[in-house]
Amino acid sequence: MAQVAVIMGSDSDLPVMGKALDVLAEFGIGYEVSVASAHRTPDKVTEFAHSAADRGIAVIIAGAGMAAALPGVLAAHTLLPVIGVPLSGSALGGTDALYSIVQMPPGVPVATVGIDAAGNAALLAVQILALNNSALAEKLAEYRRQMAAKVEQSSQKVQEEL
Amino acid sequence: MAQVAVIMGSDSDLPVMGKALDVLAEFGIGYEVSVASAHRTPDKVTEFAHSAADRGIAVIIAGAGMAAALPGVLAAHTLLPVIGVPLSGSALGGTDALYSIVQMPPGVPVATVGIDAAGNAALLAVQILALNNSALAEKLAEYRRQMAAKVEQSSQKVQEEL
Amino acid sequence: MAQVAVIMGSDSDLPVMGKALDVLAEFGIGYEVSVASAHRTPDKVTEFAHSAADRGIAVIIAGAGMAAALPGVLAAHTLLPVIGVPLSGSALGGTDALYSIVQMPPGVPVATVGIDAAGNAALLAVQILALNNSALAEKLAEYRRQMAAKVEQSSQKVQEEL
Amino acid sequence: MAQVAVIMGSDSDLPVMGKALDVLAEFGIGYEVSVASAHRTPDKVTEFAHSAADRGIAVIIAGAGMAAALPGVLAAHTLLPVIGVPLSGSALGGTDALYSIVQMPPGVPVATVGIDAAGNAALLAVQILALNNSALAEKLAEYRRQMAAKVEQSSQKVQEEL
Amino acid sequence: MAQVAVIMGSDSDLPVMGKALDVLAEFGIGYEVSVASAHRTPDKVTEFAHSAADRGIAVIIAGAGMAAALPGVLAAHTLLPVIGVPLSGSALGGTDALYSIVQMPPGVPVATVGIDAAGNAALLAVQILALNNSALAEKLAEYRRQMAAKVEQSSQKVQEEL
Amino acid sequence: MAQVAVIMGSDSDLPVMGKALDVLAEFGIGYEVSVASAHRTPDKVTEFAHSAADRGIAVIIAGAGMAAALPGVLAAHTLLPVIGVPLSGSALGGTDALYSIVQMPPGVPVATVGIDAAGNAALLAVQILALNNSALAEKLAEYRRQMAAKVEQSSQKVQEEL
Amino acid sequence: MAQVAVIMGSDSDLPVMGKALDVLAEFGIGYEVSVASAHRTPDKVTEFAHSAADRGIAVIIAGAGMAAALPGVLAAHTLLPVIGVPLSGSALGGTDALYSIVQMPPGVPVATVGIDAAGNAALLAVQILALNNSALAEKLAEYRRQMAAKVEQSSQKVQEEL
Amino acid sequence: MAQVAVIMGSDSDLPVMGKALDVLAEFGIGYEVSVASAHRTPDKVTEFAHSAADRGIAVIIAGAGMAAALPGVLAAHTLLPVIGVPLSGSALGGTDALYSIVQMPPGVPVATVGIDAAGNAALLAVQILALNNSALAEKLAEYRRQMAAKVEQSSQKVQEEL
Repeated sequence: MAQVAVIMGSDSDLPVMGKALDVLAEFGIGYEVSVASAHRTPDKVTEFAHSAADRGIAVIIAGAGMAAALPGVLAAHTLLPVIGVPLSGSALGGTDALYSIVQMPPGVPVATVGIDAAGNAALLAVQILALNNSALAEKLAEYRRQMAAKVEQSSQKVQEEL
Repeated sequence: MAQVAVIMGSDSDLPVMGKALDVLAEFGIGYEVSVASAHRTPDKVTEFAHSAADRGIAVIIAGAGMAAALPGVLAAHTLLPVIGVPLSGSALGGTDALYSIVQMPPGVPVATVGIDAAGNAALLAVQILALNNSALAEKLAEYRRQMAAKVEQSSQKVQEEL
Repeated sequence: MAQVAVIMGSDSDLPVMGKALDVLAEFGIGYEVSVASAHRTPDKVTEFAHSAADRGIAVIIAGAGMAAALPGVLAAHTLLPVIGVPLSGSALGGTDALYSIVQMPPGVPVATVGIDAAGNAALLAVQILALNNSALAEKLAEYRRQMAAKVEQSSQKVQEEL
Repeated sequence: MAQVAVIMGSDSDLPVMGKALDVLAEFGIGYEVSVASAHRTPDKVTEFAHSAADRGIAVIIAGAGMAAALPGVLAAHTLLPVIGVPLSGSALGGTDALYSIVQMPPGVPVATVGIDAAGNAALLAVQILALNNSALAEKLAEYRRQMAAKVEQSSQKVQEEL
Repeated sequence: MAQVAVIMGSDSDLPVMGKALDVLAEFGIGYEVSVASAHRTPDKVTEFAHSAADRGIAVIIAGAGMAAALPGVLAAHTLLPVIGVPLSGSALGGTDALYSIVQMPPGVPVATVGIDAAGNAALLAVQILALNNSALAEKLAEYRRQMAAKVEQSSQKVQEEL
Repeated sequence: MAQVAVIMGSDSDLPVMGKALDVLAEFGIGYEVSVASAHRTPDKVTEFAHSAADRGIAVIIAGAGMAAALPGVLAAHTLLPVIGVPLSGSALGGTDALYSIVQMPPGVPVATVGIDAAGNAALLAVQILALNNSALAEKLAEYRRQMAAKVEQSSQKVQEEL
Repeated sequence: MAQVAVIMGSDSDLPVMGKALDVLAEFGIGYEVSVASAHRTPDKVTEFAHSAADRGIAVIIAGAGMAAALPGVLAAHTLLPVIGVPLSGSALGGTDALYSIVQMPPGVPVATVGIDAAGNAALLAVQILALNNSALAEKLAEYRRQMAAKVEQSSQKVQEEL
Repeated sequence: MAQVAVIMGSDSDLPVMGKALDVLAEFGIGYEVSVASAHRTPDKVTEFAHSAADRGIAVIIAGAGMAAALPGVLAAHTLLPVIGVPLSGSALGGTDALYSIVQMPPGVPVATVGIDAAGNAALLAVQILALNNSALAEKLAEYRRQMAAKVEQSSQKVQEEL
């Protein structure tokens, strides 16, 4: 059953947002994925946000570019934490999406991650879910250990090559 | 009867958005004014946009700051032209609002004016309404003439003072 | 007969500005197109703006890059609504054109759309014309429905592929 | 018992970060507060992050300005979700802190809120805690209803005054 | 007789643009001053530019803020060198004016000085006029010597105070 | 004999700065060209600036990227007008060079043109030289007429193609 | 005897640059201070840089605003490490000075500290001098300990007040 | 024996950071190189910084991109001078790394060089080491002379080609 909903403004965002799906799969977390636009399918977005908690969703990850209203509009219609992923690709290189997502008004926060950082959005969702799931917390600790080991290996590789 | 709806995200925006009301009043155009937030009162915004045309509104002017989703969300729910006014006042000096309003995705435009330029938003609404109202067009022409005359007067004043 | 004039600062802008022409054609709206520069052919721009209303033009769409004076100078010489399209392509990625177009002084607004968003400029023109053309309004509503349907289809495609 | 730890880089950040404390108190959530600097007291920060989960902390809120390393360094030493608040006040108006907090590398996310948006950081913490606390979820729903009611009241006030 | 024309978009620009007048007066160069707006009095601007050379003007200094079209439009209508002074004061702190003035398209340059640097605009005009006026060149050399002497004096004052 | 000196910080700047040489050649203006760096060959720059006027140079065009000190340092050592060309190519896309060139302190102006706008720098030099050379002024007028004619031709071409 | 030279572009920079002097005095390091401008007194700057090492100077701290050429020009004329302090105060808030100082071309580095961070410039000088002065290194260690203690005290104060 | 430690956040930074190694090798300075991340291997970074001085390291060069905490965290754990190299490659083009490195809080400076300027970081390290190594100082002087000679050669090449 899906605990995380991944939603993006356009199917052209899938190459970036797919990193979130990979991470969720790696942690064995059920997810659903959809395309919806705060500007082109606003009613779907509203309905999606209203029904998410009842469907068992705990965290929503929303990626959008340009005047990226999707994460904020979702946050306006749900009490679930919404993680926003600003997408680059416009002439403004993602600063438009970053500002549109992170600068939410008082009362309705969006947990914003870096530009195009869909993988980190998924990890943040895992960290939230791990608060009440010790097995997941242990997987996360192991993930971090492996990540550190990879950095250490690349350090040794660099030293050997030089 | 109101032809123009002026809507803003917070009553603290009134000192800036009031310039739009002054201009509309000067041209004798009926207007309505409300406070609504795409993030704090999203249902009101949706309903507002859906009902605007039926209430006789022809143009919507929406001012918002920070992650300024209001103009775009209104535009998503109506076919009327929506004029967006990015408001300064945040740490980012209005670039956040500007990018959040102007960088709309394909399909749903917002007619964006300058930062805090509520008076210009109203003049743009007047220009749109004047397309089918020759009396209004003449008022607008007169407004421009007076504006030019004021510039000329200030030029003479500057020359006399020096 | 042309209701919309599309004007651009250079013929190298045609690949971007052509999106506006496509949208206008799709809605069956007559348009004229020209190349003129506020800096290289200023007299043509002035004459163009002065004569536009008399030629039956209702809305002007102007695209320009860099120190993009074209939309503002047109607006200075006509009472018709002018929609400005900031074009990217310079070293500053279009922020120069955006600021040059949107930050108009009090009295002479330009309805600014996103960087390179010529299609949206045309849709905004359609929205303005539809205020007094119910057939056009219905076409616009249908356009929006199809746009929403495409988003929904891409959502289903993404779900099927995963 | 404290469920949320609020940490800031300097006691001069308290006027802004205090908004987080107010929100947490309003929701009846236990919190602890401390001043620590990733650059001036790095060992304390490390120890703080390592021991947080054992002390019963579920969410860390960290505010910092300039080269705001605090949230990211905390996130590096804990599996708990870390919410970062970029603080303005430097010559760069908070863009330095925003970029330093939000642009985390793959593997270690920080949930970033708007510049100086400490109140929103606390609300995000409440949303995370409410995932497993239905009473808190209901308080949050009520908070949103009151927030919407205030917007509606300010709308009526604006209409009456005009 | 005026050799330099100083023109500004609004009489509110006089406190800044007055620095240009002071410098010109200090060098004994005749100047004329006017207020004209590329957007509000475009015909005056065109006429001004067309007639400047015939009136004996050799250099035009134009200050403007926001979508600062004035220097570029003047340059489009004259072969005289036009010096542009971007003015701050808008929400964008003068970057809008700077980009609007300096980023001219190929064929029509504007000699741009720093934001609010009206005094430097006048000095640049003096340098241009001094190319064919050796007395003026000597005055300029003396001006530089005095400027250097003042820096040296302030250096000594700083050393004495410490 | 050379009336204009073109100087650049690196021979890798030649593809951009070569546009200045082309324009000067087109107008039959003698020029000299050199590579010198305010940071790598500072003594050569100083000597170059000191001797320029005596060599018959009237205008200096200096192109530089990044921390582009060259135009300003030249201006510090000569009374001749110095035209600065900010070059892109760094990670900051030329904003570093633009700010480094245009934001000169009071007393020592640099006439700045757009990023990579070496052709415009040459045209500005031509405009300055034309103040005392009516044949050159006439060439410049003809250049402008041809430029306008080309815009008009491209306008007709666009209209024919559509 | 002076080991560190502190130089600034204008005596108006003293309130900021004075923080460097305070830190140097606190560590008992001899310093000299002067005002010199890369643009207004270029010869003095050159001479200053050439003679610094012979005068016994080991590190140069240079503060400048706007097109801040001073640190880079000093670095061009000396082999001593030059620490650059970008100063705010211009319309661009110090980004102009930051870019002008930090973006040096290959071959001539400037050690850049934060905007207005003159105190940190002095500490960096101390760190460099401490490489060969163990007493100074111990003072620096003590300075860090006291700094950490102050942070800890402010943490306790914040906790007591709440 | 290594006098300079070069450390980078990822082995993908080696193509840029390798320029530092080349320069150090050219000057015959012993160096060590490692990969470590302030966020992924924080304990290694701390240990590295704590032990650097005891290993004989005099200067640390640290390159990092995005929320580039590495140089600052190293600086927090050592009294050795730390030279930070902001790396481009993110959507923000290196401004994120630049701000994250240069804007250090009072008390803990990082000597920041230009974006991707790893070669300059090494030269700065050489300049620091040369303070107590006259042979190295002479090599540095020779390096500068050769650099100037290359600029002069490229100047002659440009002149010959034209």
